[in-house]
Amino acid sequence: MLDVYHAEPGANTLKVLLALKEKGVDFNSHYVALNKFEQHEEWFKKINPNGQVPVIVHDGKVINESTVINEYVDAVFEGPALRPADEYGKAMMRIWTKWVDEYFCPALSYLAWNWMIKSLVKDLTPEEFEAKLQKIPLKEQQDKWRITATEGYPEERLKEWRRQVETSVTKIDSALREHGKDWILGDQFTLADISVFAMAHPMPMGYQDIMNEEDTPHLMAWYNRMMERDGTNAALTMPNKMREEVKLDDRVDVLSKQGKE
Amino acid sequence: MLDVYHAEPGANTLKVLLALKEKGVDFNSHYVALNKFEQHEEWFKKINPNGQVPVIVHDGKVINESTVINEYVDAVFEGPALRPADEYGKAMMRIWTKWVDEYFCPALSYLAWNWMIKSLVKDLTPEEFEAKLQKIPLKEQQDKWRITATEGYPEERLKEWRRQVETSVTKIDSALREHGKDWILGDQFTLADISVFAMAHPMPMGYQDIMNEEDTPHLMAWYNRMMERDGTNAALTMPNKMREEVKLDDRVDVLSKQGKE
Repeated sequence: MLDVYHAEPGANTLKVLLALKEKGVDFNSHYVALNKFEQHEEWFKKINPNGQVPVIVHDGKVINESTVINEYVDAVFEGPALRPADEYGKAMMRIWTKWVDEYFCPALSYLAWNWMIKSLVKDLTPEEFEAKLQKIPLKEQQDKWRITATEGYPEERLKEWRRQVETSVTKIDSALREHGKDWILGDQFTLADISVFAMAHPMPMGYQDIMNEEDTPHLMAWYNRMMERDGTNAALTMPNKMREEVKLDDRVDVLSKQGKE
Repeated sequence: MLDVYHAEPGANTLKVLLALKEKGVDFNSHYVALNKFEQHEEWFKKINPNGQVPVIVHDGKVINESTVINEYVDAVFEGPALRPADEYGKAMMRIWTKWVDEYFCPALSYLAWNWMIKSLVKDLTPEEFEAKLQKIPLKEQQDKWRITATEGYPEERLKEWRRQVETSVTKIDSALREHGKDWILGDQFTLADISVFAMAHPMPMGYQDIMNEEDTPHLMAWYNRMMERDGTNAALTMPNKMREEVKLDDRVDVLSKQGKE
């Protein structure tokens, strides 16, 4: 029995959905509405005390952290292997997924939060917002909500995160160019592709000026290969209730402006 | 043939030395003098373009990132297993080592850098310092050197990192108390103990007010068990040339003051 608690396909949720769909694993989907702050409700914090999606419950055992979930999913379920068989290959894959978690994801995530949270909380009174904040278990997450819902991050930090996004895009494009193969590690499609794509997926929408056919042709070709996979299609067509319920205005315009000179 | 490029036993270098010594793996030790900025020299950047230790070269294959190195070392060399045999246990171990990399280590590391770098660069002229900076390959590392060598981080950020260190110490103590076993994951000594200890090792020196017998008895008992291991002793008695050559004054005093109200 596999239960998956997740939001709409995007970011860390998309990472886990991609692995499950690529392996062809059956699971019970439990949608957690981030725009309704369900991840901070008591019932959910009993499953993941950090108050974050995704989290899986497999035969009664709870696992959080999307990167770790994917390694576990690959190890225990049938389906195509998503990790290299040799230990050196595994290490190279781990360096990519670790880099996504520690560098690429935080940079993108801070920029996205800075743009998104105002929209999510705009209908709340200050008292209602404060009540929501009090339910967030991690102090760092509380701070992120408070800052992004009010004044936002300072321009200097937005600029540095944008620079990190640019550096990341160049790094991926160069790696693909240098080995000239289809996937991040070379011939085998792995969790490294899944980790990178889970973050890069919305980029052609908000970062056309740094990720495009001219400047990063190898990255774009890889992106198009990813979009053609059955696993990617199955993951991306999971319900996206936030897109239906919340009007997130002017995404492209805001993302393309913040953090720029 | 295993070559290990490392600094004195501490932080991420200690993490890898502990795993190697626990497994009883023979290796060629290559000491990289951080106080002489050797990690930014061209010969070293040919091995690790990031200009960071530790890095290993095994049968011609280069692996960086201490956490990944340890998983590789455990997988390919003889000696006691440092990871749980079952996949759920592996996932729980990975969540601990990931948390050390993303939370505990950065908080400790920023505080230590803020105190240490001034001592390291105090004999350089501004021109000499700038020349050293230009050799650092990662922009983030350049920024860290520049800030800590001059005005240091703002008090507000030091305070937040100190709070994260306190939160970390409480989290480890609670985990040990709750399961009542000897090691981080329970009965088996694993890479989770190694990752946590590599960071916690200097804490009884600089953070006695938050890590002590009274407030964190389970953490202190675990720390003492760690200190009694042959692997720990073998790693900690590796050459510590920085301690011999650089006088890092008033460590306890500085660390116990910074980031406090």
